[in-house]
Amino acid sequence: MSFPSPAIILVRPQLGWNIGAAARAMGNFGLDDLRLVAPRGRHPSAAALSMASGAEEIVEQARVFSDLESAIGDLSVIFATSARRRDMIKPEITPEIAAQHLCQGETTAVRGGVVFGPERAGLENDEVVLAEALVRVPTDPACPSLNLGQCVLLLGYEYYRCRHGKGEIREGFRRDDPPASKAELVSFFEQLESALDGSRFLRSEEMRPVTVRKIRNFFSGARPSVRQLRMLRGIVSSLVSGRPSD
Amino acid sequence: MSFPSPAIILVRPQLGWNIGAAARAMGNFGLDDLRLVAPRGRHPSAAALSMASGAEEIVEQARVFSDLESAIGDLSVIFATSARRRDMIKPEITPEIAAQHLCQGETTAVRGGVVFGPERAGLENDEVVLAEALVRVPTDPACPSLNLGQCVLLLGYEYYRCRHGKGEIREGFRRDDPPASKAELVSFFEQLESALDGSRFLRSEEMRPVTVRKIRNFFSGARPSVRQLRMLRGIVSSLVSGRPSD
Repeated sequence: MSFPSPAIILVRPQLGWNIGAAARAMGNFGLDDLRLVAPRGRHPSAAALSMASGAEEIVEQARVFSDLESAIGDLSVIFATSARRRDMIKPEITPEIAAQHLCQGETTAVRGGVVFGPERAGLENDEVVLAEALVRVPTDPACPSLNLGQCVLLLGYEYYRCRHGKGEIREGFRRDDPPASKAELVSFFEQLESALDGSRFLRSEEMRPVTVRKIRNFFSGARPSVRQLRMLRGIVSSLVSGRPSD
Repeated sequence: MSFPSPAIILVRPQLGWNIGAAARAMGNFGLDDLRLVAPRGRHPSAAALSMASGAEEIVEQARVFSDLESAIGDLSVIFATSARRRDMIKPEITPEIAAQHLCQGETTAVRGGVVFGPERAGLENDEVVLAEALVRVPTDPACPSLNLGQCVLLLGYEYYRCRHGKGEIREGFRRDDPPASKAELVSFFEQLESALDGSRFLRSEEMRPVTVRKIRNFFSGARPSVRQLRMLRGIVSSLVSGRPSD
């Protein structure tokens, strides 16, 4: 059985479209448990559904609570996001560290959540005390204000990276066009160097080894695929003969 | 002289408020060079300025170009963001790796940029070929679509983390209220254990060492500050005497 993912708790959100943006960000990063504490206006609003853009279900299934205590009753680890410093004894961690704690909880069947305050006012101190730690996004001190949906996005992004790895890196090759083998590459070098001998580009016996090394170095670093190498061979043949190669 | 930070290039952005959201995200993460290729409508629009929310200057100073080639002429490293797979030989990297390349460029005075396509259509293949690599944000495959402003936000976030460190972690102590010393803690333990001897909580001679160890373990793990420890001493005194302590 897979354990449910961390909850996202929005406290007194003022704008429906921020709820929608938060839901969309949750969907992007595999989160689905949205909880709203005393949202302003009726929920779900048209603005929230319209901004959700693919994550309407998360908006529709969001549970609404009257206060934070009841919204987090089933959770064991809570982090509170906060842009401003508090006159309170509370550890501060980054989104990355918060995500690591939340992922750890999943393996020990301890359920966690992240609490986000209202757009301008932020969380009240009586709400912050319920959290183990504050999460602060590192930002330029001259421009520290993050939008509510963006803040959910960054937490979601770090959660997903922690849960599913930091993302794939792919070499620039297609499955049906792998990198050329070194033998193919050397065969191309020989074709090219023989052509350059013919065109007198490599006419200096003394400089020849240095220049050859530079040419080979460039084409090795460029890491041509099988097809790209075939194209290069065609280019050289064509330049030599002065007409398109077969 | 500090080298200018990487450029953010939005190609054919359709909505002013996405330009504004991108600018705000840039401001959050210390980026200021915004370039627009053939934006729809007049720039700067009221929507862009309103969404910028503190980063209006970035919107106002954005340069407008007619095509991508002229927008990136002065840059040496270009990454293109792309949500969809391309039938093209191109390496794919994560925002984190892209940020590392861009930061590296700053130390070698090589200027870089990240190119973002229009909201729905994305970049054209003729534009993608100008980039060294594609940047792909790791997302839930069921819900991969990131909003333009959010995509800029994630790149900015990784750039800032790479440039300025991964963010501070703070222990939950204020400068004027440091963690209590071990001597203070042990003195509290002795007060508490003597009180519990008196209240017969520790009446079993056999179990006493185990229970004492559990109590000490809990309070050590709680890491009280000097003031918190003073409060705890007061609580114990008060409970023992049945009246508020001095």
